[in-house]
Amino acid sequence: MKAFNDLADFSTEEIQGLLELANRLDERPEPEALKGKVLSLLFLSPSLRTLASFQAAMTRLGGGSFVISPDMSIHGLETRPGIVMDGTAAEHIREAVPVIASYGDAIGIRAFAERKNLENDMAENEFNALTQLIPDTPYINMESAMGHPCQNLADWKTLDDYSIPANGGKFVLSWAYHPKALPLAVPASTLYTAARRGMDVTVLRPEGFELPDAVMQKAKEAAASAGGAVVETDDRAEAMEGAHVIYAKSWSSTRHYGDRLADQKLREGHLDWCVDEPWFANAQDDCRFMHCLPVRRGVVVSEPVLDGPRSIVIHEARNRMLAQMAVLHQMLGATT
Amino acid sequence: MKAFNDLADFSTEEIQGLLELANRLDERPEPEALKGKVLSLLFLSPSLRTLASFQAAMTRLGGGSFVISPDMSIHGLETRPGIVMDGTAAEHIREAVPVIASYGDAIGIRAFAERKNLENDMAENEFNALTQLIPDTPYINMESAMGHPCQNLADWKTLDDYSIPANGGKFVLSWAYHPKALPLAVPASTLYTAARRGMDVTVLRPEGFELPDAVMQKAKEAAASAGGAVVETDDRAEAMEGAHVIYAKSWSSTRHYGDRLADQKLREGHLDWCVDEPWFANAQDDCRFMHCLPVRRGVVVSEPVLDGPRSIVIHEARNRMLAQMAVLHQMLGATT
Amino acid sequence: MKAFNDLADFSTEEIQGLLELANRLDERPEPEALKGKVLSLLFLSPSLRTLASFQAAMTRLGGGSFVISPDMSIHGLETRPGIVMDGTAAEHIREAVPVIASYGDAIGIRAFAERKNLENDMAENEFNALTQLIPDTPYINMESAMGHPCQNLADWKTLDDYSIPANGGKFVLSWAYHPKALPLAVPASTLYTAARRGMDVTVLRPEGFELPDAVMQKAKEAAASAGGAVVETDDRAEAMEGAHVIYAKSWSSTRHYGDRLADQKLREGHLDWCVDEPWFANAQDDCRFMHCLPVRRGVVVSEPVLDGPRSIVIHEARNRMLAQMAVLHQMLGATT
Repeated sequence: MKAFNDLADFSTEEIQGLLELANRLDERPEPEALKGKVLSLLFLSPSLRTLASFQAAMTRLGGGSFVISPDMSIHGLETRPGIVMDGTAAEHIREAVPVIASYGDAIGIRAFAERKNLENDMAENEFNALTQLIPDTPYINMESAMGHPCQNLADWKTLDDYSIPANGGKFVLSWAYHPKALPLAVPASTLYTAARRGMDVTVLRPEGFELPDAVMQKAKEAAASAGGAVVETDDRAEAMEGAHVIYAKSWSSTRHYGDRLADQKLREGHLDWCVDEPWFANAQDDCRFMHCLPVRRGVVVSEPVLDGPRSIVIHEARNRMLAQMAVLHQMLGATT
Repeated sequence: MKAFNDLADFSTEEIQGLLELANRLDERPEPEALKGKVLSLLFLSPSLRTLASFQAAMTRLGGGSFVISPDMSIHGLETRPGIVMDGTAAEHIREAVPVIASYGDAIGIRAFAERKNLENDMAENEFNALTQLIPDTPYINMESAMGHPCQNLADWKTLDDYSIPANGGKFVLSWAYHPKALPLAVPASTLYTAARRGMDVTVLRPEGFELPDAVMQKAKEAAASAGGAVVETDDRAEAMEGAHVIYAKSWSSTRHYGDRLADQKLREGHLDWCVDEPWFANAQDDCRFMHCLPVRRGVVVSEPVLDGPRSIVIHEARNRMLAQMAVLHQMLGATT
Repeated sequence: MKAFNDLADFSTEEIQGLLELANRLDERPEPEALKGKVLSLLFLSPSLRTLASFQAAMTRLGGGSFVISPDMSIHGLETRPGIVMDGTAAEHIREAVPVIASYGDAIGIRAFAERKNLENDMAENEFNALTQLIPDTPYINMESAMGHPCQNLADWKTLDDYSIPANGGKFVLSWAYHPKALPLAVPASTLYTAARRGMDVTVLRPEGFELPDAVMQKAKEAAASAGGAVVETDDRAEAMEGAHVIYAKSWSSTRHYGDRLADQKLREGHLDWCVDEPWFANAQDDCRFMHCLPVRRGVVVSEPVLDGPRSIVIHEARNRMLAQMAVLHQMLGATT
């Protein structure tokens, strides 16, 4: 495995192989599998679960990791191409990335979307510019402009763990209010993941927050192959009818992408998009609540839902570690 | 061992077992004892010894650790219960703590006292709120409002290492001047530890800096069981007479707890409470100087004492690592 | 090995032994060599390669490390001797350094030159004050005022890896423009290293940027023993004639050392000292470009040179890890 960048790069058998490996490593630890192996971790964007779970994953497999992020006492990092570096930044990512990669057997990179121009973010121009600097080392996408495959694999495992049906299971991906315009990485890749798993997926969002056409199209094709379906609506009752799981997440307005004020004006008309118990009126009785975290209490989801039996967010977060252990185990060629 | 929170939770045999294990691990390393095991480290308060010694301890036993603290590039942490999170903080400790715990085989948590209300701090309301968020993972108190058991165990070992008598040994816990109002965790738990070890303990402090009644009472009961005694005084010569060890530490005024200005006014009347060679005039010849560090030179203790043969503070600090290795070894079920 | 502080402390056989060990560890990993061993890493100055490569090195050998730097949430560090600590800093390096050292089997320390007074920096007063605080633990110089032995050993390996001749090879150490007055550690120790390897070394620099006499003298003596030579010039064409490698680096004016404005005025007369392709007109066809990184693109070196086939800076940076693995392997007494 030279890269773990997008679940779309893997066959369903490969994905299921990773999920089985994740379960096996949870039940039967392999503390010598990656003995002496190093994972380089480059965080150009903030993190908690990813930061902690990758370090824990490497330790559990007998290896180790190191973290570099711009908030450390390093030399300021320049990212702009072709620049004369006579300002504050003393190091260019054109050196920093290959050097950091060269110390590891694999490198994980996190770089959120710029959220200025939708086409640019959809093209993954920034993330691709980073990975193109790595000549030989396998890399892991720890969240880019449009992708978050480690979260996706953990979410797939979570759906399996709770025996939520693949074919015939109803998955609602719901927009929620949040004071900031957040990236599309989680909603776009989560939609694909649920469709790829063969579920009946409904994207529930207010007008102006439609997911990009290419994102919808990619998910619909995955659903068609896997025996599921993808629809979208702004009607909450329709969306939630018979739902097995609601996955809440806020994201930027695609109508006003990169226009902070217009986005803010539009989203502030939807303060009531906070997932609460009445949303579940016509869902399955045991309909679950998922979220990638961090989540704003009382804003994205009510406290009773988040703290109640529907919520499986802590289990979901722990699965990050297990999913990543499986990826690292395969990528770094553990012998078992 | 489900928690290492307070020496009072352990029998004397258990404490001595930990101390023997610490010595054994120092003499005969066990670099595979905790192979593949992970310690989660959550620092809500600053640290140097604790931060370094826990990481070193896990490595020496063949495992590893990761560190999360709010000064990292994580999402801002909200700690207030029941709040609508529409401000700056994007993550609540109600998710962060169980998630971080779930990546480890044990979790260490450091959260200093708020120092606003003595009853609140004495009740450990903040620390208990954190540990109640951890469903199954064993936890280690890396300093709470009133406790610092890792320091206590290291100090007990230090007293043993220097052959300072348990029964019959005289231990002076002395207040010292410091420009800030510091927490009660070290003085309160150190007093208990020396009493529990069976020593004759004198609390030496100016008026207004008495330790809380409950703290004194707990120590007196421990002393009674262990064959020692606890007294307090503001008379330096009386306190130091025949002393085997003086343990210096500054702490907040309990009379003006949470009232910064009144505390400051009171403490500034005691600038001369800087441990210096003349203090030792009627002590044992080889009376030792201990301090948990960090210590302010020329403020809490004079340079000649701190740099002289009485001072055992570096040995004491190294014992933090060894004491914690013993705790981790037992808590994480090392097979030997 | 009690210290790795200066290549001058080692015989040529010892240096070659380290280089052979570095190659061997690259080809045949030893993931159990330093099982359970701990490297303490104290960064009083910023870092990227050193920070990452030492952590990776310890993991590859089966041990681990921890990092302390003042930008972490530790207690502020006081460095001035004999001070009454009634200000902001709560911890003195006189305690912090021996404590941090006591948790490791070795300690690495980085502390850049103060760049106020040349004699003071040449005498390594600050670095020596730090290492004198470490009673027993072996230490590694991770860059001091005048030394950077880990970089030097990595550079020697890089010259070997590219089959650049030792005797008869021409090595140009060239000053380059940079907006700031940088330390002398890399140029001084690189000059010594190339001379010690037996090369014909030319120091190319504008007037006012001569290296100190003692630095030149030390290098000349090394060259004399090793069969090489050391000259200096401000004539670019003369320096580059027949060169096998140019090692670029900016450094402070020694004429105006510690006088920021005079230094700046002098250096700004040399904005054209940016290594560019025309510099190589009369060099060897395959003349290489080296730099310790970080390097300012378009300021110290042109993009075409840095991104072109002459540049071996990424290979050079990776050699940091391998060179340090050899040092750690010997220092920590790995059994193989």
